[in-house]
Amino acid sequence: MTVIEGYTYGSAASSPVTLDDLKDLRASVLFGPEDEAALRLAGDVLESQVEDVLDVWYGFVGANPHLLASFSTPEGQPVDQYLARVRARFGQWILDTCRRPYDQSWLDYQHEIGLRHTTAKKNHTDSANAPSYVALRHVIGLIYPITATIRPFLERKGHSAEQVEAMFQAWFKSVVLQVALWARAYGDGKEW
Amino acid sequence: MTVIEGYTYGSAASSPVTLDDLKDLRASVLFGPEDEAALRLAGDVLESQVEDVLDVWYGFVGANPHLLASFSTPEGQPVDQYLARVRARFGQWILDTCRRPYDQSWLDYQHEIGLRHTTAKKNHTDSANAPSYVALRHVIGLIYPITATIRPFLERKGHSAEQVEAMFQAWFKSVVLQVALWARAYGDGKEW
Ligand code: HEM
Ligand code: HEM
Repeated sequence: MTVIEGYTYGSAASSPVTLDDLKDLRASVLFGPEDEAALRLAGDVLESQVEDVLDVWYGFVGANPHLLASFSTPEGQPVDQYLARVRARFGQWILDTCRRPYDQSWLDYQHEIGLRHTTAKKNHTDSANAPSYVALRHVIGLIYPITATIRPFLERKGHSAEQVEAMFQAWFKSVVLQVALWARAYGDGKEW
Repeated sequence: MTVIEGYTYGSAASSPVTLDDLKDLRASVLFGPEDEAALRLAGDVLESQVEDVLDVWYGFVGANPHLLASFSTPEGQPVDQYLARVRARFGQWILDTCRRPYDQSWLDYQHEIGLRHTTAKKNHTDSANAPSYVALRHVIGLIYPITATIRPFLERKGHSAEQVEAMFQAWFKSVVLQVALWARAYGDGKEW
């Protein structure tokens, strides 16, 4: 295992979100034990394809100026080191989404990820010279591509149509659930 | 056409969101002309099934106390008139999602819908005695059921697998896009 710079899973501060809040959110996205099992399988399917998935996502960000700006200097120059370091953590996130139990440590790191998209913490981890936050609307918007683009990778290891569908639905639910959790880091949290 | 009480499409105040913001968001969810065409078709497919779709969604809300609370008095009694009036507007929203051009009037009503989920306007339209806002996390969370449950209805009118898939993807994109727009009504809008 290589060390992932700036990845602090297990030592993040406590999330203001409670396990009870999480329980309701799981119900809202219909996330159950079958989804956990399907995500475990998805972890095995995606493990060897993480770099390929990241190529697709980074290609998408690179092709959209309004997204690439979040990784660029005020002069509009993409910051390579920032892109690279975040990419490594993003790869780990794919596996964490599939393999971590959604417990207190996971909840804490979810909030840390949320904060890293806001003025509270963006750029801090990598000392980057880039805009001070990622707009919430784009985080919500990316639910679509982050979900839709995963399906071909889930199909690529010879699993049945039902298995692929189960993995896909579980992934979709988890991405929505996580974005809902990250939204807590935006604003004053009052109507979160 | 029956009048839908409280439905003010076309006379809502201007949205603070610009058509340029909308352009970026459309790009984020990969929403293009094919999606507009697929939604037109979905409108034809769903028109006769609106009440059935609403039965599923209201069944889901009714089965989840943390959701039903938004339609209930402080004593926990669901407010029938409120549920009924919102249901009529929700039905119209299904058709608007499929048939309206996503222009300035649409943008304005999107913001109105957002506001109606927050302390700014919730309950006002129907003089309801219910909680003063719907938590943003649950609005984001409902992207999953509102998307996943539509597929069987899209399949029910004899369209090809490709047509159903196109309608489904367009619906998914539009729901994500709309929730991203509604998020503008929450908080101070600074990191929206
Ligand atoms: C569903 C949507 C999104 C997902 C799943 C996602 C996922 C992630 C993950 C896993 C990380 C690394 C967290 C860590 O430090 O361990 C991250 C960081 C980051 N993301 Fe996102 N993200 C999303 C939306 C966006 C959008 C729309 C942008 C805008 C381009 C963006 C830009 C960034 C940036 C700049 C960082 C680095 C933040 C820092 O300075 O630490 N993300 N994201
Ligand atoms: C993707 C998620 C959601 C969608 C697509 C959606 C859609 C809608 C629509 C179309 C309306 C009527 C707008 C109008 O007045 O014309 C509405 C109102 C309402 N929704 Fe949602 N909604 C979502 C999430 C939620 C959640 C999670 C709740 C919590 C139970 C909720 C509770 C309500 C309530 C209470 C109203 C009435 C607001 C008022 O007082 O005017 N909605 N919603």
